[in-house]
Amino acid sequence: MEIQFLGTSSGTPTKARNVAGLALRPPESSHWYLVDCGEGTQHRILHTSFSLHGLRGIFITHIHGDHCYGLPGLLASAGLLNRSAPLLIAGPPEVRAYVECVMATTALGLPYDLDFVEVEDGAHIDWLPDVVVGAVALSHRVPSYAYTFEEKSVERKLDAARLARDGVPAGPVWGQLQRGEGANLPDGRVLRAEDYLLASRKPRKIIVGGDNDTPQLLAQVAQGADVLVHEATYTEEVLLKIGPEPQHSSAKMVAYFAQEAQVPNLVLTHFSPRYHQSIAEVEAEARVEYGGRLFLASDLDRYILDREGVLARIAPAA
Amino acid sequence: MEIQFLGTSSGTPTKARNVAGLALRPPESSHWYLVDCGEGTQHRILHTSFSLHGLRGIFITHIHGDHCYGLPGLLASAGLLNRSAPLLIAGPPEVRAYVECVMATTALGLPYDLDFVEVEDGAHIDWLPDVVVGAVALSHRVPSYAYTFEEKSVERKLDAARLARDGVPAGPVWGQLQRGEGANLPDGRVLRAEDYLLASRKPRKIIVGGDNDTPQLLAQVAQGADVLVHEATYTEEVLLKIGPEPQHSSAKMVAYFAQEAQVPNLVLTHFSPRYHQSIAEVEAEARVEYGGRLFLASDLDRYILDREGVLARIAPAA
Repeated sequence: MEIQFLGTSSGTPTKARNVAGLALRPPESSHWYLVDCGEGTQHRILHTSFSLHGLRGIFITHIHGDHCYGLPGLLASAGLLNRSAPLLIAGPPEVRAYVECVMATTALGLPYDLDFVEVEDGAHIDWLPDVVVGAVALSHRVPSYAYTFEEKSVERKLDAARLARDGVPAGPVWGQLQRGEGANLPDGRVLRAEDYLLASRKPRKIIVGGDNDTPQLLAQVAQGADVLVHEATYTEEVLLKIGPEPQHSSAKMVAYFAQEAQVPNLVLTHFSPRYHQSIAEVEAEARVEYGGRLFLASDLDRYILDREGVLARIAPAA
Repeated sequence: MEIQFLGTSSGTPTKARNVAGLALRPPESSHWYLVDCGEGTQHRILHTSFSLHGLRGIFITHIHGDHCYGLPGLLASAGLLNRSAPLLIAGPPEVRAYVECVMATTALGLPYDLDFVEVEDGAHIDWLPDVVVGAVALSHRVPSYAYTFEEKSVERKLDAARLARDGVPAGPVWGQLQRGEGANLPDGRVLRAEDYLLASRKPRKIIVGGDNDTPQLLAQVAQGADVLVHEATYTEEVLLKIGPEPQHSSAKMVAYFAQEAQVPNLVLTHFSPRYHQSIAEVEAEARVEYGGRLFLASDLDRYILDREGVLARIAPAA
C-alpha cells in the first residue's frame, strides 16, 4: 500500500507546504483514493504519478476550507479531461451541500456522476474493490472524521497440516487448491479450495485522521493498525499558549497515544505555518513519547507499507 | 503602473501555468488589485511582493471556476492573517451568490467585511483612491466582463502661456501654484492654482479582458488605452477545428482588433493547456496581424507601464 502527501500545512499554504491532501493507492491497484482536497491539490497531483482518471473516490475529513477548497477545481478539471467514470465523494453531510452549491452558482456541469456518501461514526464502506473503509468521529470545531483503509484480501497459503490430516497427496491438486480452484481426488472426494487455504498474514490497515484534539478517540480502530497518519499542528508549549479553542493536537498528545496503542508506524502532518523554517521541535517532542517508526511528512513524500507492516519513505515518482 | 500575471492557463492548471489571476498595482501605491482568482492564486501570491493585507479589491470577470475557485481560500487566508480592512469584491451577481454559499456551507467566518459590487455594462467605479475602474460586457457562455483601470490623477505642470498672459511674475508664487496652493499677488489679485495648472500627459489606462469571443466589444474603451490584456486561448486553426461553442478568441482575432484599435501594447494570456510545450504558434499568428508591442504572458511575468505609455517586461520581484 502506498501513500503520498499532497499537502502538509494547516490553515494556509506556505511556499513549501500546501494545505491538506493525501493520496492512497491500494496494493497493485490501477486506481487510488484521495483523503481531503485543500486548494491546490490538483496542482500537486500534476507532480505525482496519480491521474484524475485513476481516482476512485475522495474522502473528506471535515468541511474546513483547508481540507476541501480544492474539490470544485479538481472535479472541474476531471471533467475537462473527459472523465466518464462515477466518482465517490464521502464525508460529513456539509460536503455535499458545499459541492452542490458551488456547482449551481458557478455553472459547473460534469460529464460524470458524483456518488455522495454521508459518513457517520462507525460507517463501514465495504463495496469498494480493494479496501474496506471505516469512519471514526473525532473531536474538532466542526464534525471531523478519521478514515481507516484496510486491504480487502491477502495472499493465501495452503494449510499443510490439514492436507496431511486429510491425506491429500502432493501433486497437481495442491496447485489447483492454491489457485482457489476446487479439485477432484482419484478416490472420488471433492475438495473445496477454501477448506485448504489460510490467510498468510493479517490485512494491512492505515488510519488517516482529520483535525482532532482527542487522539484517544482512535483507540479502538488503532488495534491492529499498521500506520497512523495524524495532525500535530504544534508543540504542547504552543498549544498551551494558544489555548484549546482551535481543537488541534500537539505532537506530544499524538505520540503518547500512538505509543500507548502500540501503532508501529506514525506519520505526523498538518503543521502550523509558524514552522515554515523547521519542524525540528515538533519532531523532538514526538520522539520523547514514541518509540516506533516516526515520520514527519513533507509535501510529495511517498511511503510504502510492505506486507510485514513496515512503513518506509521512498523517493518521489518522477 | 504595474501588472503581474499569477496565472495564464485556461480551464485547467499545467505544471508551468496556473489558471487565471492578475495583480495590478497603481503608480506608487501601497495597495493593489486582483483581477480574477483561479484556484491557487494565493499560492502564486506567496511568490510575489504582493500581500493579502495590501489587497484593496478583487475584480472577477466571470463565474467559471478557472477564474474564481481560488476566492474562498484567499479570503480565508486573509482572515487567518488577521486582515481587518474591508475588501471590495466586484463582478457579475453570481460571484456574491457563490462566495456566500461557500461561506455558509463551510463554516467560513471572516474578521473583515466584504463589500460586494455587482457590475454591469458601463459600470464606473470612481470612489477608489487611485484608479477609476470601468466594466464592459463581453461575449462568452456566461456573463463576462473586461475591466478598465485608469489612473485618477496625473502630474500637472504650470501653464506658462497663461502666467505670461496674466502678467504673473516668476518667483515664489509659481512654486505655490505648482504645489496646488492659491497665491496672493502684491497688486491684490488672488490666484487659484487650478487656473494655472495643465495635465502633463493623459492618464494611463489598462484593459484586462475576461473570456470573450468578440474583441470588437472593446472598441470604445480601447480608444486611448495603453494596454490590452486579452485571452488568446488558441490559434485560429484550432478555433475552427473546435468550433465556436466555447466562445473564446483566437490570437488572430485579438491581434487584428488591437491593430485596428491602435492599442500600442498587447499582452495575450489564457492559453489552452494544449500549448504546454510552446506557445510559439500563438505568438506567430498574432505577429502577422499586430505591429505594436506584443507580449505573451507567462506566470509571474511582471510588467511596468511607464508615463509615456510604454509597457516593458521586467524581472520578477525576489
